Amino acid sequence: MSRGILFVLSGPSGVGKGTVRAELFSRANHKLVYSVSATTRIARKGEVEGVDYFFKTQEEFEKMIANRALIEYAQFVGNYYGTPLDYVEKMLDEGQDVILEIEVQGATQVKRLLPEAVFIFLAPPSLKELRRRLVGRGTEDTEVISGRINTAIRELFLMSEYDYTVINDTVEQAADKIIAIIKAEHLRTKYIESTIRERIMEELV
Amino acid sequence: MSRGILFVLSGPSGVGKGTVRAELFSRANHKLVYSVSATTRIARKGEVEGVDYFFKTQEEFEKMIANRALIEYAQFVGNYYGTPLDYVEKMLDEGQDVILEIEVQGATQVKRLLPEAVFIFLAPPSLKELRRRLVGRGTEDTEVISGRINTAIRELFLMSEYDYTVINDTVEQAADKIIAIIKAEHLRTKYIESTIRERIMEELV
Repeated sequence: MSRGILFVLSGPSGVGKGTVRAELFSRANHKLVYSVSATTRIARKGEVEGVDYFFKTQEEFEKMIANRALIEYAQFVGNYYGTPLDYVEKMLDEGQDVILEIEVQGATQVKRLLPEAVFIFLAPPSLKELRRRLVGRGTEDTEVISGRINTAIRELFLMSEYDYTVINDTVEQAADKIIAIIKAEHLRTKYIESTIRERIMEELV
Repeated sequence: MSRGILFVLSGPSGVGKGTVRAELFSRANHKLVYSVSATTRIARKGEVEGVDYFFKTQEEFEKMIANRALIEYAQFVGNYYGTPLDYVEKMLDEGQDVILEIEVQGATQVKRLLPEAVFIFLAPPSLKELRRRLVGRGTEDTEVISGRINTAIRELFLMSEYDYTVINDTVEQAADKIIAIIKAEHLRTKYIESTIRERIMEELV
């Protein structure tokens, strides 16, 4: 069995990473698992421990940092977010593809640690639309939203570090595009050639 | 308008490159054009000049080589095969994707000249199946077929030069996979980032 591929889905806050991820998982025919992140942020209404996030205290989170138990972590609007290493390695070894849905700051760390991962940048159709989505979410005040827009502009200049860029016009189209990326990445010669050569050599013996 | 992408579809003789290409073009929703090759080989039954190949005499073909009018050319089982440069550049400039369906020998030349092209290796499910397909074609004698099998084995070791490898189990599945590759390649950040940044900068002015 071949090892799974790690896909990193990132992009500015408010761009719709969570919605696109949910759409991906609603589709059939995939071997994707979602890497549940740890965070110190307060759970939003409807969010479930161990499904949406592992909710941690600041003390617990800092212990994980100290123990190098995280692939990446970031502080974002005063809260920690991070990805537990064990879980990701276990899933990949079992041949499952893992999707990390993380902030841009965290993606840069993953790239240093796991350069073989596939990096997908989710971009907003426009800044106007990004602002509309942040306001529509109704969870942050105007000042926080302005801060997020400014961060988004800076983050758009980190796009070139990513293998792929998907514009989130509609969630269905964005999911279709990411599925094509996942399918194509599995066809990379580096994952296939040893299997083919072994098969051919067996026939020649 | 953005420039098209050049896809090079190659693989051993008999693997089914022509059939897969025909299947690709039978699908809707693509902006693909097929780069018609020049060859000195005799037309097979049903093959049409200017559609399947430009059929050339040896003298005509060697004049094209001398005039550097070919992206690549190869001699294969005593015949020349080559790709006219003009046609490919014109299509790419018009924003169309071009598929080159060529022999492995030729693909190596394209890689040197146009490294930004996307290289797809079409592999047989097995040598046994490859032999069956070559025999089934009924156009060559046993000695030619043995020669082609030996060439195929050598060519399988050039697979690692290719970006992607698609096993031609069934023509429909192979075409589906190539369509995913084409879709994914258009999402590469290098093709998209300047458009997104320009759009964002306009909003900031």
